[in-house]
Amino acid sequence: MSADPDTLPRGGAMPTSEFLTQLIAVIRAEDSHGSWDAKPDADLLADYIVTREERREIPIIGDPDPDLLWRVERFYDAIALLLERRTGAQSAQMSKIHHEGFGRIVLISGRLVVLSKHVRDLHRFGFESFAALAEAGDSMTADAAATLARFPDAARA
Amino acid sequence: MSADPDTLPRGGAMPTSEFLTQLIAVIRAEDSHGSWDAKPDADLLADYIVTREERREIPIIGDPDPDLLWRVERFYDAIALLLERRTGAQSAQMSKIHHEGFGRIVLISGRLVVLSKHVRDLHRFGFESFAALAEAGDSMTADAAATLARFPDAARA
Repeated sequence: MSADPDTLPRGGAMPTSEFLTQLIAVIRAEDSHGSWDAKPDADLLADYIVTREERREIPIIGDPDPDLLWRVERFYDAIALLLERRTGAQSAQMSKIHHEGFGRIVLISGRLVVLSKHVRDLHRFGFESFAALAEAGDSMTADAAATLARFPDAARA
Repeated sequence: MSADPDTLPRGGAMPTSEFLTQLIAVIRAEDSHGSWDAKPDADLLADYIVTREERREIPIIGDPDPDLLWRVERFYDAIALLLERRTGAQSAQMSKIHHEGFGRIVLISGRLVVLSKHVRDLHRFGFESFAALAEAGDSMTADAAATLARFPDAARA
């Protein structure tokens, strides 16, 4: 990005992205008391931003923070919902996260694993910028849609 | 069973079953210090037996006991290993158990969900007899093998 970092908020410019729109909707849906109504979108997504320097300073020992696991779940929820809007296929999230921060997260549609991510250093889950967050979500959704297109029968089983 | 219940141990006669043999091997493999070496197989499997009367008396509130979750995991491990011996396909277990005792357990091979069980009242997980335990394991393994045969490409993906 060529803009002076001092003139941009943390996380950089918020790109137009179907994934970010979905992720924001998922997060706002959890706010049943409306306490975040006045929060701008960038604030809701702020904790998804972890810069390279910050990442280096996050210890990877101890149980991952519940708030972090919540953010990871919302991230994959947003992928599942965007996938459903694009393909009609519903999918359910399952994860097996070891307390040391590694594990596996899957989205399952019918008999098909439409997305499978092996994660490690989950303590450091985050993205350099909103653009990187958007790109990760959009690209995983596209991968999941491609897997669905490849094995439609297993997904309908 | 026509035998007098007083002459049979709890759980009834131990049938010849590939599944029970596998389950016993899975459990013994966890016993790295050999403290169960002298235990007969029926003792190792004893906690899998829950009679109808006992089931009624088990409360289904509160978090399921970790020992119970351990038994459930070993049960599905045994299915995965027996499936591998029969078909060559390796599978990984994932589960999402709500603390109230309901949830879902899956075995995943490649991109295929070879076994998917929605569970509830997990607090009461158990079988009337060793024969019923054997039959449940054998029949789930057969179902998983049938799913594999139906979607071989997704399983290899």
